[in-house]
Amino acid sequence: MPEETPARPAELALRPVTPALASYLAGSRLAGAGELAFSDGMPDTRLIPYAVLARAYRHAMVASVRHNQLGYGEPAGTPGLRKAIADMLRMERGLNVHPEQVCVVRGSQMGIYLAARLLAGPSSCVVFESLSYPPAREAFRSCGATVLSVAQDEHGLLPDALEALCRTYPVRAVYVTPHHQFPTTVMLPADRRLRLLALAEQYDFAIVEDDYDHEFHYLRSPVPPLASMDRNGRVLHIGSLSKVLAPGLRLGYVVAAERVVERCAAEILLIDRQGNQLTELAVGELMASGELHRHIRRALKIYQARRDFTAACLAERLGGRAQFDLPAGGIALWLRFAPWVDMERLVEDCAGQGLRISNGQIFTQDPEPVQALRLGFGHLTERELDSGIQRLAAALKRQEAG
Amino acid sequence: MPEETPARPAELALRPVTPALASYLAGSRLAGAGELAFSDGMPDTRLIPYAVLARAYRHAMVASVRHNQLGYGEPAGTPGLRKAIADMLRMERGLNVHPEQVCVVRGSQMGIYLAARLLAGPSSCVVFESLSYPPAREAFRSCGATVLSVAQDEHGLLPDALEALCRTYPVRAVYVTPHHQFPTTVMLPADRRLRLLALAEQYDFAIVEDDYDHEFHYLRSPVPPLASMDRNGRVLHIGSLSKVLAPGLRLGYVVAAERVVERCAAEILLIDRQGNQLTELAVGELMASGELHRHIRRALKIYQARRDFTAACLAERLGGRAQFDLPAGGIALWLRFAPWVDMERLVEDCAGQGLRISNGQIFTQDPEPVQALRLGFGHLTERELDSGIQRLAAALKRQEAG
Repeated sequence: MPEETPARPAELALRPVTPALASYLAGSRLAGAGELAFSDGMPDTRLIPYAVLARAYRHAMVASVRHNQLGYGEPAGTPGLRKAIADMLRMERGLNVHPEQVCVVRGSQMGIYLAARLLAGPSSCVVFESLSYPPAREAFRSCGATVLSVAQDEHGLLPDALEALCRTYPVRAVYVTPHHQFPTTVMLPADRRLRLLALAEQYDFAIVEDDYDHEFHYLRSPVPPLASMDRNGRVLHIGSLSKVLAPGLRLGYVVAAERVVERCAAEILLIDRQGNQLTELAVGELMASGELHRHIRRALKIYQARRDFTAACLAERLGGRAQFDLPAGGIALWLRFAPWVDMERLVEDCAGQGLRISNGQIFTQDPEPVQALRLGFGHLTERELDSGIQRLAAALKRQEAG
Repeated sequence: MPEETPARPAELALRPVTPALASYLAGSRLAGAGELAFSDGMPDTRLIPYAVLARAYRHAMVASVRHNQLGYGEPAGTPGLRKAIADMLRMERGLNVHPEQVCVVRGSQMGIYLAARLLAGPSSCVVFESLSYPPAREAFRSCGATVLSVAQDEHGLLPDALEALCRTYPVRAVYVTPHHQFPTTVMLPADRRLRLLALAEQYDFAIVEDDYDHEFHYLRSPVPPLASMDRNGRVLHIGSLSKVLAPGLRLGYVVAAERVVERCAAEILLIDRQGNQLTELAVGELMASGELHRHIRRALKIYQARRDFTAACLAERLGGRAQFDLPAGGIALWLRFAPWVDMERLVEDCAGQGLRISNGQIFTQDPEPVQALRLGFGHLTERELDSGIQRLAAALKRQEAG
């Protein structure tokens, strides 16, 4: 009798990736060599103030030796950086917070993830606008929440639609990007902000305010964040230093009531224990010395010029084939196409020309077609923008021709 | 009619901290000024090679400018560091891995957390030795797993007891620290390792091998990790650069089958997107150049001398009041006390003398009393060790006297 081949052992069963995350991942991989990509709103890493950053790291290293600071530290962040962030938020966003209300995290994604860990659970519902940020939606879903979609219009979230959801479902949190709605870039009007806060009180939910690129705003007096109007500790305000300094440094923060920050710190102990102290010391110095502020002002001018160039270029080359509203802030715009445009074909056609764009469909979990794309202009020079828009225009014209 | 005072709005309901985590946190806070603490096995941050590290950071900054590397990168880590880690594991641990099997994470805690995210679920059971590492247990519990205790003896985990659990419960993963059992420091014998791997196959569970201080081993030929004997991709091997370089840099790694590493990367996208690229570049250089290896050899000699000093000092000052086995590796030892010692009183009494020790009870979730403590000696000089052991001896003598 021939020996039986032993059965191939079963592979380890792992929790699967959700289809929504998989499609977002596929749509947002980094640009390859020689490829242009409009991204979903990346900063230009060529603007990173390397010399200034290198000096701050040198100082941080010296301070680490002197104060023996590269051991285990506080999960909520180094005291200097927490204070620098609180100071910045007080001066520039009208947020009256003290350092104990600031938790340093690894980029805004970790702030979102912590919010999901604290607020979501197997029987909870979390609301996102129909068009929103997929990694945030998936973070909440991965922590057990049921993710609901609320309708939005050209000004953002519709409070009446949200209230209807709250009447039916146990809504525990609402995720919003009121400063520059992701992906549509619009600013949530004051009356809807007040209504949102009132609903949070009435239906006992938390507001996760992702203020991911607050600093890049082109109006003279930007609207203060929702958190500045929060009287009852219902808002978890999330910010990032990735966009204003360097994504590769992984620095962000959660601002919330002290007890929420303490809970964040306890979660951090389970997730990654604490942040990179050297980086926290270095960036704390850049903030305290005003260097970061100066860098942001320089970058802001460049981004504003790129926004204006992009707008002019789109108007000239695309004509009536696409519409957009000039965003008041941020480093991306939302380009809407007529119903005759086949978005999937457009994405493929552009890829063939070495231009990567993402189908706006990746931003929603709803079945309705999204005839739009998010066009990040911040990371490209005018020459690159022009070249990319030319390719997009050519692809559109080919489609129009049949 | 007087106006009604509005009811104070309910506070946001947050997921609570588990009691086990709370007690571990309380027991393991950092030493205050003027306080001595035996810790649970911290490295000596005074040994960090600051000059070498500073130079590597300078080089990393230059490389970042040249290759524009501080933007968004790969969630599984920078290619250079993944390769450096794979090379090190091949040469020093007999792990035949390629870079695609390495996922860079923020300290070993994040490796544990990722394992918990991938393996644990609401109806799964995860097994820990009765005495184990509480943040690991809590990470799995926080991801929904039921945590079971398996009995251990003076050589570590008892395979028969594990098999009995596997027959009764749906065991999905077993967490072990076979190189230096945490907290008891013993090495898991070869026959139990083989048995553990066979059980993993038979009962279809994963082995999470936390090799947290592999490098600090004082035998000429350290035993290779479980992962080196793993034929079927059942072991998730977790390592750390915190202990050998600097905890404050937050670098660790997960080594596993490629599909497991890919799933880790997808989780990372939800949790913190990616690591700190500057740090990864800098440490990748330290590894490739051999600087890290040289530093580890220097530190190892110091730690071995401290281990021997601690052993001699304990034998001399404590006499028969406590027993220990000289650990073959690691930077802590497990000090066992006679039944007459009141551990809580001992902890309090030492605290009164400016010496922080942790009651061994914090390492278990079982009700049986733990008449022992983990004495971390690596972070203290001989003078500090002597002073701490004197205080411990005095507290014991006071208790003995009544």
